[in-house]
Amino acid sequence: MTPAPRGASGGREFFATRTLAEALAGFRPQRRTPAETIPITSALHRVPAAPVTAAHALPGFARSTVDGYAVRAADTYGVSEGLPGYLDVAGAVRMGAAPDVAVGPGTAVAMPTGGMLPPGADAVVMIEYTAEAASGTIEVVRPVAPGDGVVRADEDAAAGAGLVPAGRPLRAQDLGMLAAAGVTSVSVHACPRVTIFSTGDEVVPPGTQALLPGQVRDATAVALAALVTEAGGEPAEGGIVADDPGLLETALRAAIGGSDLIVISAGSSVGARDETAAAVGRLGEPGIWCHGLAIHPGKPTLLADCAGVPVIGLPGNPRSALVIFRLVGMPLVRLTGGCTSPPPEPAVRARLDRDVASAAGRLDVVQVRVAGGCATPLFGMSALLSVLTAADGYVIIPEEATGLDAGTEVEVTLYG
Amino acid sequence: MTPAPRGASGGREFFATRTLAEALAGFRPQRRTPAETIPITSALHRVPAAPVTAAHALPGFARSTVDGYAVRAADTYGVSEGLPGYLDVAGAVRMGAAPDVAVGPGTAVAMPTGGMLPPGADAVVMIEYTAEAASGTIEVVRPVAPGDGVVRADEDAAAGAGLVPAGRPLRAQDLGMLAAAGVTSVSVHACPRVTIFSTGDEVVPPGTQALLPGQVRDATAVALAALVTEAGGEPAEGGIVADDPGLLETALRAAIGGSDLIVISAGSSVGARDETAAAVGRLGEPGIWCHGLAIHPGKPTLLADCAGVPVIGLPGNPRSALVIFRLVGMPLVRLTGGCTSPPPEPAVRARLDRDVASAAGRLDVVQVRVAGGCATPLFGMSALLSVLTAADGYVIIPEEATGLDAGTEVEVTLYG
Repeated sequence: MTPAPRGASGGREFFATRTLAEALAGFRPQRRTPAETIPITSALHRVPAAPVTAAHALPGFARSTVDGYAVRAADTYGVSEGLPGYLDVAGAVRMGAAPDVAVGPGTAVAMPTGGMLPPGADAVVMIEYTAEAASGTIEVVRPVAPGDGVVRADEDAAAGAGLVPAGRPLRAQDLGMLAAAGVTSVSVHACPRVTIFSTGDEVVPPGTQALLPGQVRDATAVALAALVTEAGGEPAEGGIVADDPGLLETALRAAIGGSDLIVISAGSSVGARDETAAAVGRLGEPGIWCHGLAIHPGKPTLLADCAGVPVIGLPGNPRSALVIFRLVGMPLVRLTGGCTSPPPEPAVRARLDRDVASAAGRLDVVQVRVAGGCATPLFGMSALLSVLTAADGYVIIPEEATGLDAGTEVEVTLYG
Repeated sequence: MTPAPRGASGGREFFATRTLAEALAGFRPQRRTPAETIPITSALHRVPAAPVTAAHALPGFARSTVDGYAVRAADTYGVSEGLPGYLDVAGAVRMGAAPDVAVGPGTAVAMPTGGMLPPGADAVVMIEYTAEAASGTIEVVRPVAPGDGVVRADEDAAAGAGLVPAGRPLRAQDLGMLAAAGVTSVSVHACPRVTIFSTGDEVVPPGTQALLPGQVRDATAVALAALVTEAGGEPAEGGIVADDPGLLETALRAAIGGSDLIVISAGSSVGARDETAAAVGRLGEPGIWCHGLAIHPGKPTLLADCAGVPVIGLPGNPRSALVIFRLVGMPLVRLTGGCTSPPPEPAVRARLDRDVASAAGRLDVVQVRVAGGCATPLFGMSALLSVLTAADGYVIIPEEATGLDAGTEVEVTLYG
């Protein structure tokens, strides 16, 4: 008696529902952004397009790591507090200058931390283990071995050594290393340009102060733009398109040439979603890769490869759209931008403080608050954005599980 | 016989060494950046200066969460597949428009997901549980309760409800919530302006291609600028100042009026550090708070409060400077920028694959590589930046520990 569940499959039976793992592994359009050269002062989190190597050794000269005296280590062998050794002070090294004096047998040269080791010296005695014995003479009360108190000329990097790898976003210390090596600009992938469309006759711009009955403001576009930015992309506003397949197709065609990736928060009704799929399907080959992910919330997700450009059709409600874009869209933005080693996400382990149900065969994304080692699941319909704003992070319940019991230790991915 | 360890205390015996916890809890200069109003499209990670509340309820009208038929729930009580109920279809709701038809007893109105519930209806039956019986009539095979398939008018936010709190950096979903509520600009703390000085006669700009003997390029400033950015600050280049207390004092005095925070990577020698302390000490009251942290690497750290502006004197070598700035400087940048709920840091639990020694009484920051659940400590002198670029993150060994055994499970804070 029950009719076929049109809402769940409709005209899309043709496209199998995929799992998250299948989508991440299998949906990989070819598009990659080209390389551009930028100054290191603007390169935080940018993705090197090629490894960078050291043109010369670093620090480039043997340096003292302590304040003290440059010596020949052999001159200190056997000394002790009871039987100090005595060395003549032949001079002092100044910071940032070549030593104008060498260390010969029985002599020492005063060294600041970071100073260049003078010729003849092979170690530096810390000042704490010396004392002035007479004018021009020090006593040394602890022996040093060759290399003590010294950084070798190539100890931070040998000539030709890798400074930063390709594909991993640059971190603060990576920029420091490039600066140390005299590399002041770096070839990085251009930020993927991600055009974001919102569709739906009910959707109006956020600046609309007086809503007419049935209208809602576009909450998704600004939030998606923020996630694009977090993933290293450059969001571009596609605007709001009415539920009209012709209009949508025209808008998509106009955008695709200037986009590295396209995101559509699709209309929320079945009809609107089907129209989105039809418009995307005509945009380029090979076209739609899947229409439906075994994820809750977020099932009505469309992934398409339009001549190498990834196109993501997100569910119509903002919460589902943001959940899916974090799981599927941000990795695609990173991939398109040449990132092969995504940065780690904040996460914490916590114990669920109540049972969570989950249907087998779909991955559930459960929003949680976290406090004192406890994760409290937040329930509420997937249409509610407030569940996301109340959450500190989310827990993933895998496809094979039918729920998690209170007390289970879970990994919470935190919103940063 | 051993002379007093000048390198460890010198002229600074007066200032007790502090622990990290003491510094974080006790060193809290008053400076906070003022509020400024910016569009939500630029507000990712910015810190609201005041809570934002909803001017009206959200979504503002009762909405369907499914495709189906708006009904009076009572009309469906008792129906089943064997004994369907029959309802007359009085019309259809269009997206984004007020319904032009009401639901009376024995009638239903076709609803798209997200459509406005018509007058008289109190629930929506999913289309899956209906079928067209005759023209203008449907059969319903499952009962619904009042509220089923509906989001209430104030279910996402009641009028006056908090949308985002003050002091917590805005996340993507927070921006979406503001947009949904028609809030297109937000009052946030200005980004703290952090002026970064490098000192040392040996330090030359990163762009210096041919180094003279004893010179090193300034690796610290660009890396510190990146960490300032990550903490929500706006870095300003103070430049490189020679080891001359008069020059440094002049440079600091010129900068402090336009800075919310000042960072100095001090000269690496004891003398240069003492000169930095002297210059900072004359900059404003109450002045130096501590000169020495019980942290390795990074002991020679200076913290000062100059008329409410935090001044941080970092160790001279880049690696120690970056370690300390992460632990102490980034929290100060956030505090100055009004952030009371810092974002979570990426972290992972892993097992040490070898022993790590640590001196009791100081906190040790051990750089590690992480792979397959194992954390491999990276050793090397604190002067080496390459230890930081090779690391995936770091492990903190607390003051009371004297080391950690191989196999110990540790928390690794990951570089993002």
